[in-house]
Amino acid sequence: PAVSPAAERLRYILGEDDEPPNPTLFTEMDTLQHDGEEMEWKESARWIKFEEKVEEGGERWSKPHVSTLSLHSLFELRTCLQTGTVLLDLDGYSLPQIIDDVIEKQIEDGLLKPELREKISYVLLRKHRHQTKKPIHRSLADIGKSVSSNTSESMGSNLRPVASLSLWVWKRGGKAKFWQPLSSLPSSFPQLKNKFIKKIPKDAEASNVLVGEVEFLEKPFVAFVRLLQATMLGGVTEVPVPTRFLFILLGPAGKAKSYNEIGRAIATLMVDDLFSDVAYKARDREDLIAGIDEFLDEVIVLPPGEWDPNIRIEPPKKVPSAEKSDDGEMPEVHEIGEELAWTGRFCGGLYLDIKRKLPWFPSDFYEGFHIQSISAILFIYLGCITNAITFGGLLGDATDNYQGVMESFLGTAMAGSMFCLFAGQPLIILSSTGPILIFEKLLFDFSKGNGIDYMEFRLWIGLHSALQCLILVATDASFIIKYITRFTEEGFSTLISFIFIYDAIKKMIGAFKYYPINSDFKPDYVTMYKCECIAPDPAPVAPNTTNISLYNAINLTALDWTQLSKKECLKYGGSLVGKSCKFVPDLALMSFILFFGTYSMTLTLKKFKFSRYFPTKLRKLISDFSIFMSILMFVGLDVLFGLNTPKLQVPTDFKPTRVDRGWFVFPFGKNPWNSFTSHVAPVTLLGAVLQKAAGYHLDLFWVGILMAVCSFMGLPWYVAATVISIAHIDSLKMETETSAPGEQPQFLGVREQRVTGIIVFVLTGISVFLAPILKYIPMPVLYGVFLYMGVASLNGIQFWDRCKLFLMPAKHQPDYVFLRHVPLRRIHLFTLVQIICLAVLWILKSTVAAIIFPVMILALILVRRLLDFVFSQHDLAWIDNIIPEKEKKKEDDKKKKKK
Amino acid sequence: PAVSPAAERLRYILGEDDEPPNPTLFTEMDTLQHDGEEMEWKESARWIKFEEKVEEGGERWSKPHVSTLSLHSLFELRTCLQTGTVLLDLDGYSLPQIIDDVIEKQIEDGLLKPELREKISYVLLRKHRHQTKKPIHRSLADIGKSVSSNTSESMGSNLRPVASLSLWVWKRGGKAKFWQPLSSLPSSFPQLKNKFIKKIPKDAEASNVLVGEVEFLEKPFVAFVRLLQATMLGGVTEVPVPTRFLFILLGPAGKAKSYNEIGRAIATLMVDDLFSDVAYKARDREDLIAGIDEFLDEVIVLPPGEWDPNIRIEPPKKVPSAEKSDDGEMPEVHEIGEELAWTGRFCGGLYLDIKRKLPWFPSDFYEGFHIQSISAILFIYLGCITNAITFGGLLGDATDNYQGVMESFLGTAMAGSMFCLFAGQPLIILSSTGPILIFEKLLFDFSKGNGIDYMEFRLWIGLHSALQCLILVATDASFIIKYITRFTEEGFSTLISFIFIYDAIKKMIGAFKYYPINSDFKPDYVTMYKCECIAPDPAPVAPNTTNISLYNAINLTALDWTQLSKKECLKYGGSLVGKSCKFVPDLALMSFILFFGTYSMTLTLKKFKFSRYFPTKLRKLISDFSIFMSILMFVGLDVLFGLNTPKLQVPTDFKPTRVDRGWFVFPFGKNPWNSFTSHVAPVTLLGAVLQKAAGYHLDLFWVGILMAVCSFMGLPWYVAATVISIAHIDSLKMETETSAPGEQPQFLGVREQRVTGIIVFVLTGISVFLAPILKYIPMPVLYGVFLYMGVASLNGIQFWDRCKLFLMPAKHQPDYVFLRHVPLRRIHLFTLVQIICLAVLWILKSTVAAIIFPVMILALILVRRLLDFVFSQHDLAWIDNIIPEKEKKKEDDKKKKKK
Repeated sequence: PAVSPAAERLRYILGEDDEPPNPTLFTEMDTLQHDGEEMEWKESARWIKFEEKVEEGGERWSKPHVSTLSLHSLFELRTCLQTGTVLLDLDGYSLPQIIDDVIEKQIEDGLLKPELREKISYVLLRKHRHQTKKPIHRSLADIGKSVSSNTSESMGSNLRPVASLSLWVWKRGGKAKFWQPLSSLPSSFPQLKNKFIKKIPKDAEASNVLVGEVEFLEKPFVAFVRLLQATMLGGVTEVPVPTRFLFILLGPAGKAKSYNEIGRAIATLMVDDLFSDVAYKARDREDLIAGIDEFLDEVIVLPPGEWDPNIRIEPPKKVPSAEKSDDGEMPEVHEIGEELAWTGRFCGGLYLDIKRKLPWFPSDFYEGFHIQSISAILFIYLGCITNAITFGGLLGDATDNYQGVMESFLGTAMAGSMFCLFAGQPLIILSSTGPILIFEKLLFDFSKGNGIDYMEFRLWIGLHSALQCLILVATDASFIIKYITRFTEEGFSTLISFIFIYDAIKKMIGAFKYYPINSDFKPDYVTMYKCECIAPDPAPVAPNTTNISLYNAINLTALDWTQLSKKECLKYGGSLVGKSCKFVPDLALMSFILFFGTYSMTLTLKKFKFSRYFPTKLRKLISDFSIFMSILMFVGLDVLFGLNTPKLQVPTDFKPTRVDRGWFVFPFGKNPWNSFTSHVAPVTLLGAVLQKAAGYHLDLFWVGILMAVCSFMGLPWYVAATVISIAHIDSLKMETETSAPGEQPQFLGVREQRVTGIIVFVLTGISVFLAPILKYIPMPVLYGVFLYMGVASLNGIQFWDRCKLFLMPAKHQPDYVFLRHVPLRRIHLFTLVQIICLAVLWILKSTVAAIIFPVMILALILVRRLLDFVFSQHDLAWIDNIIPEKEKKKEDDKKKKKK
Repeated sequence: PAVSPAAERLRYILGEDDEPPNPTLFTEMDTLQHDGEEMEWKESARWIKFEEKVEEGGERWSKPHVSTLSLHSLFELRTCLQTGTVLLDLDGYSLPQIIDDVIEKQIEDGLLKPELREKISYVLLRKHRHQTKKPIHRSLADIGKSVSSNTSESMGSNLRPVASLSLWVWKRGGKAKFWQPLSSLPSSFPQLKNKFIKKIPKDAEASNVLVGEVEFLEKPFVAFVRLLQATMLGGVTEVPVPTRFLFILLGPAGKAKSYNEIGRAIATLMVDDLFSDVAYKARDREDLIAGIDEFLDEVIVLPPGEWDPNIRIEPPKKVPSAEKSDDGEMPEVHEIGEELAWTGRFCGGLYLDIKRKLPWFPSDFYEGFHIQSISAILFIYLGCITNAITFGGLLGDATDNYQGVMESFLGTAMAGSMFCLFAGQPLIILSSTGPILIFEKLLFDFSKGNGIDYMEFRLWIGLHSALQCLILVATDASFIIKYITRFTEEGFSTLISFIFIYDAIKKMIGAFKYYPINSDFKPDYVTMYKCECIAPDPAPVAPNTTNISLYNAINLTALDWTQLSKKECLKYGGSLVGKSCKFVPDLALMSFILFFGTYSMTLTLKKFKFSRYFPTKLRKLISDFSIFMSILMFVGLDVLFGLNTPKLQVPTDFKPTRVDRGWFVFPFGKNPWNSFTSHVAPVTLLGAVLQKAAGYHLDLFWVGILMAVCSFMGLPWYVAATVISIAHIDSLKMETETSAPGEQPQFLGVREQRVTGIIVFVLTGISVFLAPILKYIPMPVLYGVFLYMGVASLNGIQFWDRCKLFLMPAKHQPDYVFLRHVPLRRIHLFTLVQIICLAVLWILKSTVAAIIFPVMILALILVRRLLDFVFSQHDLAWIDNIIPEKEKKKEDDKKKKKK
């Protein structure tokens, strides 16, 4: 009922929603510059969505920023439109003709004295000069010429034949039906060379704003023109975009600044979604005025005393959409698709998955052939082999080389390519992950401690887990994932991060024990340090004496004891005497440098993405390949020093890392062990980001099958590697190609296909022949990578953000959305509970209970359920997710309340 | 002529400027909350200058931000004031009475039905609940209690006797002439405990905004009240500030959000400088409306499509002042005071300086006794001894210990305290600086290379420089400083930074040569590594054989060759045989770790100031003491490892570092050398930041005298240390104590006195007895500090910023003001010239010409003058300073243009 007349009017003209949207408007504002007698129109700002201003002195474009207008100028603009000439749907084909029409109308309406006709026309037809970006190398070459006269710049050299321009226009959609080589008009076409055109959507139209002061006028000359058909007006616009709107404001001298502000106001209005709609559909002057009134009603106001209008406001990350979301609303609830619904039939879920995925199967291949795939393949391949190397190396370390780099490569290649070929979500990359490493380590220690054969033991555990997976698939039991909230997820991943960090540091400290440093060494007394192998007592000290040896058949006396190595000496019963025997020089410190150097260099390179140096693409490349580059760098350093640091052990032949095992493990073992389902969680949760019909059951089925195969072959187990999978999806992201300066590009979807994954894993398989290169990698470098991975995976975990809040005074805390809605002490309490859970898990991990570690995830789910009694659902919704049933309950509560 | 009626009206009521300013207004907005039948007023936002909002769910204050209003709400407010009740200068002493008066007036004017009197009065007298900050430890203790009911909070425990509150009010200025224990009113006084009061100026008054919706009204109840006298209204305001204004808006149910916006609008207006003036002086309703209109005219508008009103805009660094500076104006010209004018008389400048400073002499002492001085002394003392240690250590290194740490301490103490006692700018800290270190090094190498006695040579150079200083003083020649523009200053300091960085890295690489690493070492073959001292050939190999030695009277044969150290062995003609002779384990790598660790830790700690953790004061402390803490940390690490790293050499007794020199150098040398005046530059330039009458001539006089004294005593020379001096001034800065949240505190001046400086240097003198501690400092740690100093001093140099621009794509470049006004290619050209100058200086430094290094500053001045022919004065004004005469010329040009 309380609709203003302006809104009423607009509702009428804007009409139905089903009309095709209007073209995007590019707005350019030119101001009249006087240079003695000469005049020209100089571009002073432009808008696609945000304003870019020409920095007069700097001869450059400012950064895109939000246009801050003065209310005063908006009101003045309103007056201008009320009193000036408004010509809608003028049939114009050239600038002179349009200007003639406008002047005619003004004279007709008695707004302009006829004797000024010529003068106005002369002014409006002056040359237009645009702010074009000159490549810097050309500018530097210019320096010699322009040293003395650094203001004037010739445009003549940019001339292009007219034909090519028209061709260009025709190619871009052929909107301009009329092209005329305007001799009286600016005759240069730097438009073609202007890279800015890329930022403008193809069907865009231009609106030109011309403002300036002239001596001969006594009152302002204002015109707003809408052309019937968008028309190329020659050099008026910086880019070859046809002009649809023209706003002209010429006024008496002395108020240039005010005219400028009015020009900025109309330009900003023209790029406003609502007003541009109005401008396209307005029937008369009043419609335009109503448009301004509606704009004014929506406008946001900053008090003059609290803000300096000279500060340029950066474009916001997201601009409000039509339906504004309320600040106090609940956060969006984590949606779980119908794919996880319980079918109630045997293998029902699996059947549905296959049914869903099958139609997409062919497209999964032909959609893969795209230029973007190549870079994705390269990137993911490097990620995969880095991962295979590091995990393989550490796995070899943990299992005494029962599984090493060779197994890691082979397993990755086999499991990965199978999964990519047949699974439901082919973008997921299978990989050995941290928890598996830890589990294998626990398993190895356990079987070693209890005298069980590790490989067989492991086979049975693998088979058992695979069976469990298949049972889960057959019974559609994947719905359990619904109970895994952020609390459980984050608790678990934090624990894994901590284990990474702890292990890396422990290894490093181990190096100092393994290579003890002689801290009493005095360089001058180097003569005092030696380590001699002394033959055992019974043997005579003098060499070359032939006594019959007392020891088992070896002629010890024939040995030159001084030539024996440390190990040999001890083996033959000799003793080591000397100050330097216990010590190993340099290796510990060198290991530390390699370790810490790799870690900090990776960290630094990763952050390089956010620096200001170099073009964005190069920065992104450096950041994406940071781990690879750090490894390369510190391997190089290690080679340079040539020290005998511990290296990665890779078999040079295609055979298992350890000689006493084959490629098949015989199923003869002791007791099967606990389930392994916990690692399935990431697989399934990850699926939610994908678009094509999901296939949780199908994925789980393949994970199970591959687990069995790997167990039999003695290869590591593979589950979804969150980080690499996300990187994979990220590198296949499709975004809008043109976006206005200052605007965030829009996400269009992911190039979902099977080709990239398969190629990546085939390449990984071929890489087993990389052994001659891989053996140069020192272990401390890998530990450094692991420290980095541990630290990096802590970031982005909300739990960790909340932990940090403990150390921050309230007023310095970041503006997390949950802080706006949940009291700090409740947040701290929740965090404390999580910390305690983690501590308990940590203690469990360090004791014999470690072997049940994977089932801990169930314990975490339980704790989370108990928290429902301590925290309100409102609080939990913000700092965690709601457990499904509860959620429903809540909705019921809401409904009740409403009644 | 074109003044609007609103402006006209305001001009009349605001009247003359010489009236005392109105009190600052603190505005609190309370909204009516319905909780079933119960109602209460809950604080929802507050303003001193910027808005702070209560985060409803978070139970906390938001960060202060710029109030973004909707234009709509401002117009609605305007209507409210046009139609509602406006009571100006009401004589109110209590809230019930004021409310009664307001309601009476409304009924009188026919705006309110009399039967609603009771209801309105009831609503308006409901309890007020304020958002008080609860200390977090208390909140955690509360968790046990509040786990189940986490919304209600009792306020009863905060009761305080009324008497103490009145006393408090009386103390704060006695504005509240009337105090009444209001039994019907909110009866809790958490106000006293509210630390927020510190943020409010003492003479502040409050304006209370009450908005809410009630069922029983059919049209809004609006009242704007100005009290004749500011009055404490009990618990209405969060802090005990007397209320002057009251804005009440009660309306029919359903439009709470709109009322809220109107409340925010009036609150924002009340803290606006102009409108609050109007509110204090308004004679009637129309004046207030005129105030709103004027506010609207000044308002800044953001287009709705480009900005999300939910984003909180951070307060700007500086708010526009009344007279707005134009964006396109020239930068402020570097002012040079009359102190540098040429008097034309002998010692005229010196005489004037003494005349100027003498009256301040007593105040320079008693003004030093302030609590702030203590922290300044501690901080600067630590800076001074760190500096003395590092420079002393490096100076000893460079001069073969002719001048070492002992001399450095003694010289610093003596020169510093003398300067602080008598000089013109007692806040300047004298110290050995980088250029001096380099100069001494060059001098030492030169005299060593030419067989000249270093100490004597140096004495003559010192005397010569001292004489030059005194001549400069006597002839008032300091005006030459005017020619030192940023070009020269920055070129010189960049060179010094590079020398620091280069030297630190060179020293570090030296360590790897000095302590070679045995890269072929295999831990297992430790038995192969030894280094034996073999007696020279003529001597028989068998021990204990007594032959008559062939060598000079020493019984070499009696020596146990295996027990000799490396040096001894070589000294007695033995030879070293073995694989480990050439190598020194661990020391090189340890040195590197200490070096790089110190550097990066200092860098990290320095940046800690900008992190979010811990309260600001603690962060600032950590950042200020970063060098000290890093040294401490890595000295600790070194002690822990116990390796024989090279240490700082400090004599444990009070005697020169080198035994073959005394405390007095006899003036017998060869040729006096070039001037040293270049280092005087920083002394004088620094003076410009100080307020009390400056004394360049006096300072230079003392620098000269002290240079002579130091030369005679063989102590390092001292000039003004820019970094420490600025830190000194910084730590004595006086700022406004109360500032509104979000507002930058205002700079009031520097506590200029002589006490802190003198105490610092006396303490430094006493610190020569620190030798037992200082000898634990490894040299690599000091090199690390020097690397840091070199890198840190590059930051903040505009030249360096411009160098970085070469690597940045134009669109990522920071918004430097000079980029807005000077074309990029001109900037790059200017930077290139500087780079070439630097390269030339660097080459000069590395050749024999090094000794004329100090006069290079003159060459730089010359180059700069030549640049006047290449660059326009406009460009130079932005990227450099204008050379004085040119400046005048420019002004003339301007004047001509105007004509």
